[in-house]
Amino acid sequence: MSDNPLNAFVPGPRCKLAGTPSGPLAGKTFAVKDLIDIAGWPTGGGNPDWERAHPVPTRHAWVVERMLAAGASVIGKTATDEVSLGILGENPFFGTPRNPAAPDRVPGGSSSGSASAVAGGVCDFALGTDTGGSVRVPASFSGLYGIRPTHGRIDFSGITVQAPSSDTVGWFARDATTFARVGETLFGGALPATLPTTLLVATDAFGFADPAVAEALQPALTRLAALIGTRRDETLAPQGLSVWQGAQRCLQSSEAWRTFQPWIDAYNPRFAFAVARGLTLGSQITDAERTRAALMREEARARLRLLLPPGTILALPTTPFPAPLLGQSISTLAFMRERISCLTCVGGLTGSPQVNLPGRTADGAPVGLSIVGARGTDLDLLAVARAFAG
Amino acid sequence: MSDNPLNAFVPGPRCKLAGTPSGPLAGKTFAVKDLIDIAGWPTGGGNPDWERAHPVPTRHAWVVERMLAAGASVIGKTATDEVSLGILGENPFFGTPRNPAAPDRVPGGSSSGSASAVAGGVCDFALGTDTGGSVRVPASFSGLYGIRPTHGRIDFSGITVQAPSSDTVGWFARDATTFARVGETLFGGALPATLPTTLLVATDAFGFADPAVAEALQPALTRLAALIGTRRDETLAPQGLSVWQGAQRCLQSSEAWRTFQPWIDAYNPRFAFAVARGLTLGSQITDAERTRAALMREEARARLRLLLPPGTILALPTTPFPAPLLGQSISTLAFMRERISCLTCVGGLTGSPQVNLPGRTADGAPVGLSIVGARGTDLDLLAVARAFAG
Repeated sequence: MSDNPLNAFVPGPRCKLAGTPSGPLAGKTFAVKDLIDIAGWPTGGGNPDWERAHPVPTRHAWVVERMLAAGASVIGKTATDEVSLGILGENPFFGTPRNPAAPDRVPGGSSSGSASAVAGGVCDFALGTDTGGSVRVPASFSGLYGIRPTHGRIDFSGITVQAPSSDTVGWFARDATTFARVGETLFGGALPATLPTTLLVATDAFGFADPAVAEALQPALTRLAALIGTRRDETLAPQGLSVWQGAQRCLQSSEAWRTFQPWIDAYNPRFAFAVARGLTLGSQITDAERTRAALMREEARARLRLLLPPGTILALPTTPFPAPLLGQSISTLAFMRERISCLTCVGGLTGSPQVNLPGRTADGAPVGLSIVGARGTDLDLLAVARAFAG
Repeated sequence: MSDNPLNAFVPGPRCKLAGTPSGPLAGKTFAVKDLIDIAGWPTGGGNPDWERAHPVPTRHAWVVERMLAAGASVIGKTATDEVSLGILGENPFFGTPRNPAAPDRVPGGSSSGSASAVAGGVCDFALGTDTGGSVRVPASFSGLYGIRPTHGRIDFSGITVQAPSSDTVGWFARDATTFARVGETLFGGALPATLPTTLLVATDAFGFADPAVAEALQPALTRLAALIGTRRDETLAPQGLSVWQGAQRCLQSSEAWRTFQPWIDAYNPRFAFAVARGLTLGSQITDAERTRAALMREEARARLRLLLPPGTILALPTTPFPAPLLGQSISTLAFMRERISCLTCVGGLTGSPQVNLPGRTADGAPVGLSIVGARGTDLDLLAVARAFAG
């Protein structure tokens, strides 16, 4: 039998590294997305032409170093969408990781293998990256806790850049306690003793989700509101979720093109068509369009500062629907991807932390409830997640 | 030792089929570009995701059937640029065929393996397709006779379509006699007894080529003029070679997108970046742009009718430079490709037949002289080629 039945891990020898014998994560195992450096192991980036253009790293990424020092042990490097460009998890070069919670559906991406490994019970937690939704989407689709931390709060050194103004490193876990403990280690602090006191419900985001999803999340929302106290309905994006999404798409795509252009020009790398098309469209974005998008980003940031004073968090569906079925056409999936990012764009645009709370299903597949806080309130969100788990 | 040292043939078992024992091509061997159907053998199209979307053909392409009936035997299917989209011959999925005449340079494409096999002496002739230069360019780069026949004259059934208004099937040979005999078989007629009597020299095309190429071709031009009789200098494209090229690029790219779009949408195939970018740009061409290009095509056709009354042919450099060195950046190669097609666009725009005459070198690598005739004068061009060979 294959030692990689979920196709969660990259092909070839399995990278294994023991953590220090003691520490807050002693005895825990974790997997590392193959965009995050581990010394002595090539970073493959989910693309067949990435590795030959990039030397084998000689240092661990900061986040890996930190996890090993806290006692956790690496059990492998995990599959990713090509150079993180995707949120569905399909990869025609190395195979699509299985979604253990919904085997006929995509796992979500780009941190697809990390989600698959954790959801399949192969390790306790896993590291991923999230630029436009790459932790939050697979967390929602696979029924996991997942966090996109405050932008810039966790050292990104040793991690493959996509779009610097949106890139973050996050993680997945099956249980809220492990999930929170990783955060305490990385943020260097304990969970706060008290929870936020006001819960805003993003009515536009719930309205944007499929009705079955909005309905499936209602019991979770009710329980969350009971935990927090005050509940109030609010519009998240007065300018329109799709307008925010357009700004994020513009900024992220043009930054991604600038990041990868030298490699692409020198190596003419192989890509799935949809990935190459996205890069090409990114190359066509003008400075004037970037300026408009950057102004809309300022509007989104202003909105979140207004909505989220201390003690307030906001709830929205993580994705508007559960994981799409495998094997659909590019055009169908492209529109789904755009729709998903109408809900995930708040992260990249505002830099706010966001946590996916699992436990609900629609159409028989997982779908998550997200909580968003003001920048820097990551530990508060982890505390809510742990309290919510009960 | 590999039985595919030039990487000219597709991977896997070698397709071999004996021709009928007698016939004008009895004893001759030929290779078949892997975009041309051979019954019982998959047509791979130079792309890793083409074959699974297309059933194994149950009939030979008309042109293969014809060659077998004339006595020639198939010795293999040859490498091609991905679904014929390219004129340089590089293929990152299956490897780039070697250019036996210039091993540090690209072979030219998209009929790269057919040119490589013939230039390497592996077979007597080989079939290719030419939409925007895919026979003429590798013929020039590899030092071979090569023909793009009159558009629509040779049955295209059983051949992978790219851009129907420009697609043709052609062939390569090392010697002018075999080269002409294939034509006599396919066109169903003998070479004419008399040669054309007027040779036009396309001054704009010679001016557009690298000076070293224009100079290297002068002795051939002088000898050709001596063979024909009257020689006259003319401008080929009064509107500009680059204007003609823009029209051809527009029509060909948008037709190629329309051809491949259903497959791409259903399969999200893998491509080298440069190929996927070209397809994406093709998808963005508007109907208004197509109309402008179609009008310029009418101007080009009018120009050729004016220039080429019966008994007149036109000479131009096949390519503006010899084969580029291997391993250059996308942006460098992209501009070279555009420059090459400023000379090859006359074929796709006007449907005129064109033959590459080998034998000259510049910078130590082959470069060919082309002769172009009015539509339907294919046998006249083959007669010139045979007389020119002496």
